[in-house]
Amino acid sequence: MSLPIAALDYLDAHWPEHLERTQAFLRQPSVSAQGWGVRECAELLVGWLRERGASVELHGRESHPIVYAEWRAARAAAPTLLLYGMYDVQPVDDQDWTTPPFAAEIWNHPLGGESIVARGACNSKGPLMAMLHVIEAFRENGGLPVHIKWTIEGEEEIGSLELPGFYERNRERLSADAAFEPFWSQSQPGDTPNIILGTKGVLGLEFIARSGAWGGSREVIHSSLGVWVASPAWRLIQALSTLVDAQQHLAVDGLPAFGTILPSDDALLCAAAERLDTEEERRLLGVQRLKDDAGPEELVRRLSFAPMLNLNGLKSGYLGEGSHTILPNEARATADFRMPPGFTIEAVLGALRAHLDRRGFNDIEVVMDSGYPAARTPFEAPVVQAMLDAYRALGVEPVVDPIEPSATPYYLYTDVLGIPFVWGGLGWAGGSHGPDEWCSVRGLQNLMRSTASFLQAFSERMGPVEGPRETR
Amino acid sequence: MSLPIAALDYLDAHWPEHLERTQAFLRQPSVSAQGWGVRECAELLVGWLRERGASVELHGRESHPIVYAEWRAARAAAPTLLLYGMYDVQPVDDQDWTTPPFAAEIWNHPLGGESIVARGACNSKGPLMAMLHVIEAFRENGGLPVHIKWTIEGEEEIGSLELPGFYERNRERLSADAAFEPFWSQSQPGDTPNIILGTKGVLGLEFIARSGAWGGSREVIHSSLGVWVASPAWRLIQALSTLVDAQQHLAVDGLPAFGTILPSDDALLCAAAERLDTEEERRLLGVQRLKDDAGPEELVRRLSFAPMLNLNGLKSGYLGEGSHTILPNEARATADFRMPPGFTIEAVLGALRAHLDRRGFNDIEVVMDSGYPAARTPFEAPVVQAMLDAYRALGVEPVVDPIEPSATPYYLYTDVLGIPFVWGGLGWAGGSHGPDEWCSVRGLQNLMRSTASFLQAFSERMGPVEGPRETR
Repeated sequence: MSLPIAALDYLDAHWPEHLERTQAFLRQPSVSAQGWGVRECAELLVGWLRERGASVELHGRESHPIVYAEWRAARAAAPTLLLYGMYDVQPVDDQDWTTPPFAAEIWNHPLGGESIVARGACNSKGPLMAMLHVIEAFRENGGLPVHIKWTIEGEEEIGSLELPGFYERNRERLSADAAFEPFWSQSQPGDTPNIILGTKGVLGLEFIARSGAWGGSREVIHSSLGVWVASPAWRLIQALSTLVDAQQHLAVDGLPAFGTILPSDDALLCAAAERLDTEEERRLLGVQRLKDDAGPEELVRRLSFAPMLNLNGLKSGYLGEGSHTILPNEARATADFRMPPGFTIEAVLGALRAHLDRRGFNDIEVVMDSGYPAARTPFEAPVVQAMLDAYRALGVEPVVDPIEPSATPYYLYTDVLGIPFVWGGLGWAGGSHGPDEWCSVRGLQNLMRSTASFLQAFSERMGPVEGPRETR
Repeated sequence: MSLPIAALDYLDAHWPEHLERTQAFLRQPSVSAQGWGVRECAELLVGWLRERGASVELHGRESHPIVYAEWRAARAAAPTLLLYGMYDVQPVDDQDWTTPPFAAEIWNHPLGGESIVARGACNSKGPLMAMLHVIEAFRENGGLPVHIKWTIEGEEEIGSLELPGFYERNRERLSADAAFEPFWSQSQPGDTPNIILGTKGVLGLEFIARSGAWGGSREVIHSSLGVWVASPAWRLIQALSTLVDAQQHLAVDGLPAFGTILPSDDALLCAAAERLDTEEERRLLGVQRLKDDAGPEELVRRLSFAPMLNLNGLKSGYLGEGSHTILPNEARATADFRMPPGFTIEAVLGALRAHLDRRGFNDIEVVMDSGYPAARTPFEAPVVQAMLDAYRALGVEPVVDPIEPSATPYYLYTDVLGIPFVWGGLGWAGGSHGPDEWCSVRGLQNLMRSTASFLQAFSERMGPVEGPRETR
């Protein structure tokens, strides 16, 4: 591939102004959980998008709008890329920040070096600004190499309430050749970037035990009556204890130990196992012992392909300080079920229900509050190959991993829109959701360079296509 | 025995004023677990005791004082009665009350009829006020028939932290012929009152799972890492699930299914079984099904003599609204262990530890935060016979039960001071520890009448004694 030299030179020349605009964006709070500055942030963004020639629309909720922007490429026969972005951030309450979270000051961060420290710097207002400026750079230098459709949501941190519906209602409108999200693939300078071919899915669940035909009282009663009356707390414990084995691996009847592992995954897993430093991982995770004595091959296989049921919260009875001698009338566990490729929401819910029923726990309610499946893109997809081209053109050789253990709703691309996706870019940042969230200043420049290179590479990989996808 | 007519008439004449003072007392919060209003409540009480001629001292903790009050009888040769009282109450958080828990409003309660609804109305600020007014009634009408020593604690609901030490350090000072606590022996109008010859003991426990050599992370980490890192929440669930069987009966290695049942208990249990209306109990308890299909003989035996481990609270991970995909670094369960006669604290703690260790759960901490053993008094003791006399003089024939399932530290009388005890009185109340706790207005009057009669009966049963016990 050829590097987009004019655009890259433009980014270098306009760096002070782009850095300043990035800081200005980070200084505008946009805390979706509290509704703090979210609408204002969307309006600030809309202005900047329009200044760069986008046709922009607002969708979804008035208070947390989805910003939708489109640009045409320089040539009609260019491919179309659907971009993902988010402008909302996590709350900052009860966190100990060195400088105010919305001051966006630049200082020498112990991990990142010279960095902007601000809520959203890493996740994901920094990358959003990088994308905006890359688009500007192309438009000021002969035009975009790809048609662009960009959905930018303001609800990612509260569960992307409106985005799935927006995608489902606008399949034709959003049709594209591939989807892309610019994001840091390094955690510190010198890290080898990785390309990950997919993510696990996730199911938010609640298990609830209440009194009923099995026993228990409708009311909270005195605990001395426990000799006569069964407790929903014991009931929930007994039901949950059947769902994992002694090593806490999933033990739900009918669910396999692994999701669908393709023949092409074997080499990726093998290479990942070779790279894995188990001792170092243990140290970073703060654990004395992992779940069992599994070797690196088994560990990387689990990370990408093992299903898992995690308890996020357990609540029953008196939760305050001290003690309270009551027999609770309810017990609840919130949980997330991590779904590897090949698992469906229906199959997981069905298996949990059947497993509990088979053991006499048909009274235990299993409530799903959110969820989406895993998503993956073939290594051979032009959008993945373009990412590889972009890294290589900038002189770095990435590693390729099969499936990310955490979840992102990329099923919207693969399952709803039927297109492949990739995410990535050079640059390092960190502290997502925590205090002193940061992105490296140099890393931000690298993210812009690699993103510009990727757009160019994708255009070249695809070659001439019939034209903007919405006309097909 | 002769009824104390003058005192009873005085109680009738002064009822409006006594009712009002009882409401005022209930309006003063005294939540020991939260330290809310406890000291203020003690001071209010001290004033009222002194107004009635008591010599009063405060002992124990500044924040939760033990109020100690003494009165001499009209004649020096009267017997001495040690009274138990408590002025603290359980918390009211997260409970759905019809009227505010410290408003002490009077309304027509579905179970109790015209009732004061307030935290502490039943347990035990209502009975405390009844005792206070009975003492007043005797003092205003010729003097008390017994010498009185009254210990009133402000920590009963958090495990009577200071009272045992106070008794142990003041054995001589507290010497008496018997101990007594006024309390409702009916749950609704028309109920047959009962005399109970003892109480179970209780052990306040906490089970804690934290990361350690077995696994788990020191920090709260992202739940997607649950494929590698074990969770203290699952660990606690697995450990606890071994402690009870499928019907939630205690299943701790080495602990018998029942405590010590004396030959004299058999007839009492038999009579209790005959009186037991299982269907009615189920209805009152709000349960569709008891723990199993045990018959009345087995149920009454369990109520008095079966040990039980009850979960009062379960806490792990995120306890707020919604969900939060974390892997917790700690899980806790608060529990109470109910000990029948014959069980010791040491044996129970030892058995729990050995049981968990034998199953590989030596990492699970078992913390005891309070506890005391069961206690019982012979049916033949004059103080029990005096209670019987008092009921009969008021025209009711009580039933006699062996051991009360809930715990009160009567071991302080039997084991520490070496004196027999009884508790009881007419009147009905309920909702102890729960929302809409209540005591019947008419029941409160009856409690005062029977308490006055009991003081008179005890004095007559004992006959002239050598004098106030502290002079012996």
